[in-house]
Amino acid sequence: MPDIDVESLTADLAHPILENDYATRWMGVEVLTLEPGLVRIRMRVRQEMLNGFGITHGGMIFAFADTAFALVCNDPLGDGGTSTVATGADISFLRATRLDDELTATATLRSHQGRTGIYDIQVTTPGDDGSDVVVAEFRGRSRTVSNTAISKK
Amino acid sequence: MPDIDVESLTADLAHPILENDYATRWMGVEVLTLEPGLVRIRMRVRQEMLNGFGITHGGMIFAFADTAFALVCNDPLGDGGTSTVATGADISFLRATRLDDELTATATLRSHQGRTGIYDIQVTTPGDDGSDVVVAEFRGRSRTVSNTAISKK
Amino acid sequence: MPDIDVESLTADLAHPILENDYATRWMGVEVLTLEPGLVRIRMRVRQEMLNGFGITHGGMIFAFADTAFALVCNDPLGDGGTSTVATGADISFLRATRLDDELTATATLRSHQGRTGIYDIQVTTPGDDGSDVVVAEFRGRSRTVSNTAISKK
Amino acid sequence: MPDIDVESLTADLAHPILENDYATRWMGVEVLTLEPGLVRIRMRVRQEMLNGFGITHGGMIFAFADTAFALVCNDPLGDGGTSTVATGADISFLRATRLDDELTATATLRSHQGRTGIYDIQVTTPGDDGSDVVVAEFRGRSRTVSNTAISKK
Repeated sequence: MPDIDVESLTADLAHPILENDYATRWMGVEVLTLEPGLVRIRMRVRQEMLNGFGITHGGMIFAFADTAFALVCNDPLGDGGTSTVATGADISFLRATRLDDELTATATLRSHQGRTGIYDIQVTTPGDDGSDVVVAEFRGRSRTVSNTAISKK
Repeated sequence: MPDIDVESLTADLAHPILENDYATRWMGVEVLTLEPGLVRIRMRVRQEMLNGFGITHGGMIFAFADTAFALVCNDPLGDGGTSTVATGADISFLRATRLDDELTATATLRSHQGRTGIYDIQVTTPGDDGSDVVVAEFRGRSRTVSNTAISKK
Repeated sequence: MPDIDVESLTADLAHPILENDYATRWMGVEVLTLEPGLVRIRMRVRQEMLNGFGITHGGMIFAFADTAFALVCNDPLGDGGTSTVATGADISFLRATRLDDELTATATLRSHQGRTGIYDIQVTTPGDDGSDVVVAEFRGRSRTVSNTAISKK
Repeated sequence: MPDIDVESLTADLAHPILENDYATRWMGVEVLTLEPGLVRIRMRVRQEMLNGFGITHGGMIFAFADTAFALVCNDPLGDGGTSTVATGADISFLRATRLDDELTATATLRSHQGRTGIYDIQVTTPGDDGSDVVVAEFRGRSRTVSNTAISKK
């Protein structure tokens, strides 16, 4: 599947929740795969994503994974009456990345029970030999709520 | 204590690790308190921090808390030979925030054992009655490593 | 406050949820403090709590902290119509303990929002010099549900 | 593969770290599968594993998953000079279980980087229709250390 820039996608192709997602646009996220239970996205590390050690700010890695999480737990063909939001997440940082590194986040459903979901998002970057190296492991906890609940929250 | 803009602070006043922390600058973080074992910072939610639900992107809340974490676990008067980096973190989102909301992160040391540390960062916002409301609870796990290890990582 | 054996306490003094809590009885937990928002309990490491490395099984440390969590998030004077259950928890192990070591768990409320709560439980043991050493840091996530929901679950 | 009782296994067949693991023996854990990167174990909920709500104590679920974690991250054919210990774990409880319920824990390697590992353990129980229902999702964080470090710790 060819890579598609999210700017052009959001209007009609990619996912309704990206349409007004300014944070994801700012990150320059591309959507690579968008299937039920499986999402893959990509971004490149920019200077505004670096921390004082000259490596990618952990919060930017988290934000990138969190976007994949939001995409995988909200079915674009859902009924429109509910939304699924993050109640929390745990992240482990396994390897530092730097300016211009390309990151891929792969999000999958792990478990679902009632209105609660557990999703895993793995962030990788190409290693020196071209094979993927794991940058971070993110586990998201979600809860499905009525849209009314979000707008009032 | 008067609020101080981090742009002016980083050159000589605030904390060495902010000097080249482009992500924290981009967020517009102000340092309110910087003491051993206690850090307080503040930022205002901008449009680029919003997700597709019109609320603050969880990744931006995390990134904000993560900056407080980095500040509290790196003593600005440290010996210069080591740095403390995040190995992971858990965050629980308790309340949504929106455009222009003001966020404060308060970071404290919870436990320290050998090269491992546990830090708690609470993110709050003023509620309708002016008292603080908790937006998120972040618990960071840190490890102290030699500076050589970071530059090679 | 003198130490009190939970066997004698549970009938009328300590906490209704301990009355039929066979796991907590098996662990030999003593209740030291039981106040709103603050609970302290104690137990001694027995042989059945050791793992194959000859140190306390992480699950037993977790179970001990989890009991303190259950006590702190269920008010013994509550209305009787609801119960608060753990939806999840994170634990960091900071120091190994061994046979006959005495463990204390101190549980405090961190944040509360709607039906969701965040509680911190610190497990300590006396160190060589008599001062407390942190064994583990546990952060529990709770949700308050109707008693009907538990009995059907 | 037939189910094998761990009591008979530990002497020569199952895994060296079970040999003196009194906690795992107390739980009555059976080893179903023991392969590099994949472990499956089973136990039945006994009365001493119940909490005051009459459901399985979260700590016992955790302890059961933690045993699967210890098995999967310690290669029985390892070099003998190092051991892998849990530095922490996160667990989400998705469904309550009760007396006599049968639990299975399936542990898999998620990521490995240097001396750090991330492992996922899923705890299930047979549902009303016979298919597996997820009871809990456990994510363990490990660190490989020299055996000397454990014995001194």
